[in-house]
Amino acid sequence: MPPKRNIKLTLAYDGSEFHGWQLQPALPTVQATINAALRRITGDPDCEVYASGRTDAGVHALGQVAHFKTTSLIPCDGLRRALNALLPASVRVFEAREMPAEFHARWHVASKSYRYRLLRAEICPPFVWRYVYHYPFPLAVVAMQTAARLFVGDHDFTSFSAVSSEEEADEGVKNPVRTILYSELSEDRAADELVYEIRGRSFLRHMVRKILGTLLEVGKGRLAVEDIPGIFEARDRTRSGPTVPPSGLYLVEVEYPEPWK
Amino acid sequence: MPPKRNIKLTLAYDGSEFHGWQLQPALPTVQATINAALRRITGDPDCEVYASGRTDAGVHALGQVAHFKTTSLIPCDGLRRALNALLPASVRVFEAREMPAEFHARWHVASKSYRYRLLRAEICPPFVWRYVYHYPFPLAVVAMQTAARLFVGDHDFTSFSAVSSEEEADEGVKNPVRTILYSELSEDRAADELVYEIRGRSFLRHMVRKILGTLLEVGKGRLAVEDIPGIFEARDRTRSGPTVPPSGLYLVEVEYPEPWK
Repeated sequence: MPPKRNIKLTLAYDGSEFHGWQLQPALPTVQATINAALRRITGDPDCEVYASGRTDAGVHALGQVAHFKTTSLIPCDGLRRALNALLPASVRVFEAREMPAEFHARWHVASKSYRYRLLRAEICPPFVWRYVYHYPFPLAVVAMQTAARLFVGDHDFTSFSAVSSEEEADEGVKNPVRTILYSELSEDRAADELVYEIRGRSFLRHMVRKILGTLLEVGKGRLAVEDIPGIFEARDRTRSGPTVPPSGLYLVEVEYPEPWK
Repeated sequence: MPPKRNIKLTLAYDGSEFHGWQLQPALPTVQATINAALRRITGDPDCEVYASGRTDAGVHALGQVAHFKTTSLIPCDGLRRALNALLPASVRVFEAREMPAEFHARWHVASKSYRYRLLRAEICPPFVWRYVYHYPFPLAVVAMQTAARLFVGDHDFTSFSAVSSEEEADEGVKNPVRTILYSELSEDRAADELVYEIRGRSFLRHMVRKILGTLLEVGKGRLAVEDIPGIFEARDRTRSGPTVPPSGLYLVEVEYPEPWK
């Protein structure tokens, strides 16, 4: 048997149409949808796509990365076109690229970038509600911006994670220290939005949404910028803000180190 | 009994969520959705909303205008807030305003503006497909722009209308002459879109989508700019281009004359 080709996919999806990335019995997920298309295209009934990481139900992706192995001889651009022809309009493949056999979309991640969109306009246009979190109330934006920068660096993010499960323990929640490279909140005045952008080597479950929930508490004056270091130290999930809705969250980009860029 | 108040609503909706504006048995329509909300708010089981005109299934509205009559004493801003609280996120009311008793959202229209969005990018992002017509093939844009201007003025639009029905006869299709005040196709290079804008006193059914289908035929080279006058003269629906999909079409604004502006 010839060695299987290893194909890297860069893709976008509308999270409001799926119950997250990961396979779930009897629920539409992005992974199940792509697997079904790949099996038709490649003729391999076991073809399976692996992402850089799951995204939760309702979370969007602008640049998710995934890989799959196949004996199919269809050129990469043909695979991309065939996928876009078979997949629903809510999933689009921007690139298919041949990689060395050892490339793994999850194990080799160097960093991931997320964006969170918070719409401040009094009325949320009917075309936008699936793609933002609508929060039309007053916020102390400068305090939120100062607090946002405190997340940069190496921190124990236990206070900013979801209740752990067996599976998450597998994913390394035993070490809850994460390295954040970028964490900034900016105002998009034209769109009347606050846009939070964070880049890190990896993230705990619900971490970005818990950070944003905490920044919102700062914006409402229920927490002070000075409270953030104490929340890290407490290692107590009840001390951070609530988990904000998935509709505002986007996986923007997954970066890989030099050989797999 | 006190005289009923006459309330004008300005509203937006995502047409992809509805089977058009107009009431239809057992199908979700914008009119039925607003009627249900108004009946709960006003307590009047017969409360009925009337729009400037129907929009077909899948057609969006940025500034539809409608009116309803009520004995409710709730101030206009309270009505607007109550509507936005009860209506699904796919319909939003931007303004509720008290009008003279004789104002009618349909009879008093001075002009209406529509927009059509044609996405030219090779890949349609998963967040956009409900809101554009995706056409990623080559087009002779300058010829389309020249042709677009030929629709300005008074013309018999029979060739650019849907097959008539009894109901449409009621709406005045017996006189198929319409006055177009503005008709321009522009390029939005940042969004990689062609945007067609048309303003007229009134429109025949499917008229905007048939005009755009005809402009696309010009863009593809299947019709010449010089063919347009002959298509008008023929008064023959088979001579114009096909009806393009509703997903790209927006009712942008409804204008009223001075006393009802």
